[in-house]
Amino acid sequence: MEPSSGTGGARPAVTPVAVVLPAGGSGERLGGATPKQFCAVQGRPLVSYTVQAMERISWISDIIVVVSPEKIETMKSIIEKYGHKRVTIVKGGITRHRSIFNGLKVFTEDEFSNHLLRKPEVVIIHDAVRPFVEEDILSKVVVAAKEHGAAGAIRPLVSTVIASAADGCLDHSLERAKYRASEMPQAFLFDIIYEAYQQCTDYDLDYGTECLHLALKYCKTNAKLVEGTADLWKVTYKRDLYAAESIIKDNLSQQVCVITDVKEAAAQVGFLLQESLKSQTKIEAISVSLSKNNSHLQNVISGQCYNFVCVNDKKRAIQETQQVVDMLEKSNIPLLYPVVLISVHLDISENISFSIGMEELTRIKKFAREAKNENILVYGLLIQYKRMLIPFTRRNI
Amino acid sequence: MEPSSGTGGARPAVTPVAVVLPAGGSGERLGGATPKQFCAVQGRPLVSYTVQAMERISWISDIIVVVSPEKIETMKSIIEKYGHKRVTIVKGGITRHRSIFNGLKVFTEDEFSNHLLRKPEVVIIHDAVRPFVEEDILSKVVVAAKEHGAAGAIRPLVSTVIASAADGCLDHSLERAKYRASEMPQAFLFDIIYEAYQQCTDYDLDYGTECLHLALKYCKTNAKLVEGTADLWKVTYKRDLYAAESIIKDNLSQQVCVITDVKEAAAQVGFLLQESLKSQTKIEAISVSLSKNNSHLQNVISGQCYNFVCVNDKKRAIQETQQVVDMLEKSNIPLLYPVVLISVHLDISENISFSIGMEELTRIKKFAREAKNENILVYGLLIQYKRMLIPFTRRNI
Repeated sequence: MEPSSGTGGARPAVTPVAVVLPAGGSGERLGGATPKQFCAVQGRPLVSYTVQAMERISWISDIIVVVSPEKIETMKSIIEKYGHKRVTIVKGGITRHRSIFNGLKVFTEDEFSNHLLRKPEVVIIHDAVRPFVEEDILSKVVVAAKEHGAAGAIRPLVSTVIASAADGCLDHSLERAKYRASEMPQAFLFDIIYEAYQQCTDYDLDYGTECLHLALKYCKTNAKLVEGTADLWKVTYKRDLYAAESIIKDNLSQQVCVITDVKEAAAQVGFLLQESLKSQTKIEAISVSLSKNNSHLQNVISGQCYNFVCVNDKKRAIQETQQVVDMLEKSNIPLLYPVVLISVHLDISENISFSIGMEELTRIKKFAREAKNENILVYGLLIQYKRMLIPFTRRNI
Repeated sequence: MEPSSGTGGARPAVTPVAVVLPAGGSGERLGGATPKQFCAVQGRPLVSYTVQAMERISWISDIIVVVSPEKIETMKSIIEKYGHKRVTIVKGGITRHRSIFNGLKVFTEDEFSNHLLRKPEVVIIHDAVRPFVEEDILSKVVVAAKEHGAAGAIRPLVSTVIASAADGCLDHSLERAKYRASEMPQAFLFDIIYEAYQQCTDYDLDYGTECLHLALKYCKTNAKLVEGTADLWKVTYKRDLYAAESIIKDNLSQQVCVITDVKEAAAQVGFLLQESLKSQTKIEAISVSLSKNNSHLQNVISGQCYNFVCVNDKKRAIQETQQVVDMLEKSNIPLLYPVVLISVHLDISENISFSIGMEELTRIKKFAREAKNENILVYGLLIQYKRMLIPFTRRNI
């Protein structure tokens, strides 16, 4: 879900862009169960992953999450817990179209939020239950919407579509190649989609679901269709929650957070590490003074990163690694999944003897044995660091 | 995947029914990876689960699996390993329709199998990558095919279907309520679908995918459409393999295999247990002499049941439970998932003292401690069994 770099789709840098995420489904159709968007996936509500996918994109200014009235408090606590930024919560209507319309109104009426938000040139409409959206497709629909007024992601049909006659028998089947499934995200010039919603009938608002259709019907705007990737799927059935969980686990297991001391040598090694890893894995780098409470690090840990590298001067390395271990234990994440933590001990002294190195490694080993009981796998790496990076010795425990 | 009892859909008992499972996809579209139907899910190829779903249905006489020429040996070894019965392997063609046609020919031409199989009145066509099909929907399409000549399962559309104009923009969107997704299984009077395949053009065979369409076009048969459940989904993307794995794990964890000695008392207790459990869980009962090699038990263990109850006379109970533990270890299943094994020790002697019972429990406890190292959780249950079932004492370890 990290924005990928250099993967097509011109970055629509100067256009003000906002996102409306309808998340108002009451789950009634699922027999009173928790609506999918609030179901926990790896202990975290699905909607939070979708919000995260959006807020990681720097050119999105506002994220409007539309929820049913009884979920407003839930949504507030999700935003607080996972430290989401740039999010405005809006009370939804009784149907999807009414909820989206409410979401758009925060830019034009002051009924729905404390202050009017800055009206965007382009608005993206996405689903709260499609957490795997990438920057590439978002960028493509925004660029296409600027040109055509409206744009939407499409996918090939998985099954043949058929029409049935009144007697419940096959009337005809559609030629698969000529049709596409309309998916999300979609993007619109704000004025076009807002006008379409203002003009549309109660019947549209109550029974319609397709925004591209409204733009066509009321603004004569033929949306540009953009082929999306398989990531755009929507969590609809229970099996989709299973799939989402496996994909999120996969993603997290490939993500690394490098935590470095703010001191010069550690920050420098951390930077080198980050540079050499970034072509191979998704990497997040944090430079912190661990002695202070650090909310950014807290957020990464709540975000359930599973792999950490702590780079510290060897004098404080074990102590600072211990702090990360403590934070992880408090987060309950190691209960769900083993966490890997590589503790890098930097030795920047001029003279180092082999026996001192061994002593250090013995301390790491003891520390690792204790952490292992908490499902945290600590590996120690002692590096003698002068002008260049020379691995002194390495030991897995 | 166990046939459910009493869930609608008259059992088409006297009609000879066969199944054709096209499994010929070469996986080329997936970039040379293993085709989905041969991907391992919990260590077992997906196609084997689908075959199992079919062979559990007693009224299906033959299962024709159509595979590409290079997969014939793979398929043979799958059938042998998992002990599948009533399966005939047929060499597929280069497209889905050509493969299905080859599958049908085993009933009319002797080119495709050593001997002509008995021509069924109704043939079901299903997909190898839809392993969760239930007896209920199979029975419904067969009954409908007998009446209408053809029948197919349908599902509501998940996404809006749209048609694009030549310029890649939206032309129109279909009203979702009027259309359905055509899924599998489908069923046909054999003579109708066979005639449709004989009459259809090379273009149909090369580019078509929809059997209901062929029956309509060449035999003027309007298929009856039958609403299916969400279980009918097709494993298409990698995320679907994740979902399949989770569902299979769920199913297996709810399944119990009761293994009883062939001796009278044990068989009787096993029967009582099976009767009282069968309303609550999926249960398979096996009465075996464990001292002999038993291929049925081997198959259940390869089928990856995770819960076992062994009922034995107390004199041989530990020894026979040890044999089940040995078989489980050899199968490598406990590596994937913890296995629960309840060892029931039957005491049928007239007089039993409390101290003898305690001695027995101490032995079970020791045995369980060893098995736990292999990820097999053994629980012991000592039952004093005379005319009625009296639980004497119970101890979890």
